[in-house]
Amino acid sequence: MNPIETDTLVIGAGPAGLFQVFELGLLEIGAHVVDSLHVPGGQLIELYPDKPIYDIPGVPACTARELVDNLLKQVAPFKPQLHLGQEVSALARQDDGRLLVETSAGTRFLVKAVVIAGGVGSFQPRRLPLEGLDRHFDTQVFHGLRDARAFARQHVVVAGGVDAALDAILALDAAAEDRPASITLLHRRDVFQADAATIDRVRERMASGAIRFIAGQPTGFEETPQGRLAALQVTHGDAQALRLPVDALVVGLGLSPKLGPVADWGVALDRKQVLVDTSTFQTNIPGVFAIGDIVTYPGKKRLILSAFHEAALASFGIAALVYPDQRIQLQYTTTSTRLHELLGVPHT
Amino acid sequence: MNPIETDTLVIGAGPAGLFQVFELGLLEIGAHVVDSLHVPGGQLIELYPDKPIYDIPGVPACTARELVDNLLKQVAPFKPQLHLGQEVSALARQDDGRLLVETSAGTRFLVKAVVIAGGVGSFQPRRLPLEGLDRHFDTQVFHGLRDARAFARQHVVVAGGVDAALDAILALDAAAEDRPASITLLHRRDVFQADAATIDRVRERMASGAIRFIAGQPTGFEETPQGRLAALQVTHGDAQALRLPVDALVVGLGLSPKLGPVADWGVALDRKQVLVDTSTFQTNIPGVFAIGDIVTYPGKKRLILSAFHEAALASFGIAALVYPDQRIQLQYTTTSTRLHELLGVPHT
Repeated sequence: MNPIETDTLVIGAGPAGLFQVFELGLLEIGAHVVDSLHVPGGQLIELYPDKPIYDIPGVPACTARELVDNLLKQVAPFKPQLHLGQEVSALARQDDGRLLVETSAGTRFLVKAVVIAGGVGSFQPRRLPLEGLDRHFDTQVFHGLRDARAFARQHVVVAGGVDAALDAILALDAAAEDRPASITLLHRRDVFQADAATIDRVRERMASGAIRFIAGQPTGFEETPQGRLAALQVTHGDAQALRLPVDALVVGLGLSPKLGPVADWGVALDRKQVLVDTSTFQTNIPGVFAIGDIVTYPGKKRLILSAFHEAALASFGIAALVYPDQRIQLQYTTTSTRLHELLGVPHT
Repeated sequence: MNPIETDTLVIGAGPAGLFQVFELGLLEIGAHVVDSLHVPGGQLIELYPDKPIYDIPGVPACTARELVDNLLKQVAPFKPQLHLGQEVSALARQDDGRLLVETSAGTRFLVKAVVIAGGVGSFQPRRLPLEGLDRHFDTQVFHGLRDARAFARQHVVVAGGVDAALDAILALDAAAEDRPASITLLHRRDVFQADAATIDRVRERMASGAIRFIAGQPTGFEETPQGRLAALQVTHGDAQALRLPVDALVVGLGLSPKLGPVADWGVALDRKQVLVDTSTFQTNIPGVFAIGDIVTYPGKKRLILSAFHEAALASFGIAALVYPDQRIQLQYTTTSTRLHELLGVPHT
């Protein structure tokens, strides 16, 4: 099948990637988006979909879900083409200078520029190091909790000691008539890396017996003859073995920065962060740009609002490649009739 | 009177300056704000208070007024101290390294850092070059239109050919029973620099006779014996003189970049823009930072979203001065209990 020909491929459908499509759209540059997750929103939607964020400029408070919904609404005039649930697996320069990109799902793109937008490949859920456990993924093993009410009357084990795990514990505990039969928090020791108030609440519920805590490490698992996950084998701190019956296992070990194939492309890195020219957010590879939490430069802070700025400047860097013979003018959405047309603003 | 002692003085109460106070607040750094205008909001509130902006990230559409209201709400937990209607007139380094800043109203500040936040001094309404006209300012001469209904049954002249002038014309024309007795647009020639749709509407109204257009330059004015402004003297394109009766004159010539005393401080400039180190947004003068439309660096675009990023990085640059012995950690508003305390988020 012929590759999809477009101006730009954005890798990552988090806030940075979505806003990148918007900024490219304002310059009349087309874009497709690839993300390994099955929903847009990236890291924040994975970690804290419903916790308020207070430092989006001009938005006193919003949840990650609201932010992503608003970004999707903002970018809608440019009809972003999202290719979800797939990772970029290969990138090759063509004779005409364009880049041929292929994903794990076999989708291919022929583009003038690629933007690595933090999300995909750069962060993946940390897995439990148990060989073969993956075959229960999405049926009995979950990375993060989508719906606390889906586990009524089950024996649920949550593995981890960060916010993702503790939030899952509290959500399960609060599921009222859909509460699990038992809720067990499994972590290597009785020390947590999370919001202090969250830790306090979890400790209260442990003290009251509503939540069971086990300090230990999973070393294996048991399956039924039908192949269902039945129990975890756990080693206690004092090396005692323990069998932990489990209907559902929620893994909340946080996200791990992982560059995936990016590292193989020859993109210059500094301590696993992508180095960029801050005037265009181009990497050392012509046509390959990077924005968001994955990049580093002097003064870099991993803030969403910085990713937005980076996306805007990257779009001008990309415009210079897409329209090599034009001087690209900054136009303002408040006053430009052309931008109003592009945005579908009714002509008043 | 003793000067006000605080950590930081922010010059400019536009979006950049307001968000600067927020970012400083998150790092527990105090700030006062000075602006030459009498209301917060800066350039946008002056130019287009009610036109939608479409490129604030995560906000599909908002007016400048809504943006500024939301920024004021966002920064409210840090109780920003605004000193409006005054300009910075002097800056001097003290023996202890701090900066003593004085305003045109005689307010003095003793601070560790100053942030030039684009607005004040950098943009001022362009004036008509008529000696003595200023004494009618705010009684019969206005820069921009605040309330179109305040001129019922008056002879109103609007001078200018940019959006500010044309928007004023259309607002006056639409004032229904409070419509002026006459509305005259005065501009040196029949060519306008404004939104195409706005120009079309103005031309329609001129063609229908609702709005009078005069291509000419004001060369003087007449006053009544009581000292009221009575008429403008105007030279036509063909050098004919014309007497234009006027009850109210709205000047809509746009804003002029003007650096004011900043230029005298020895701040390094490039074509009237302030040069900054993009890792901290410090200028060449230690303790003097700059963000927003007034700064330049490779790739700089005059976008509000870039000013927000610049404010965030400047706050870390300033933190290094305010807390010289501490390593400043980036905390996230979503998860940090300390930030929740500062923001007044109810403890859940």
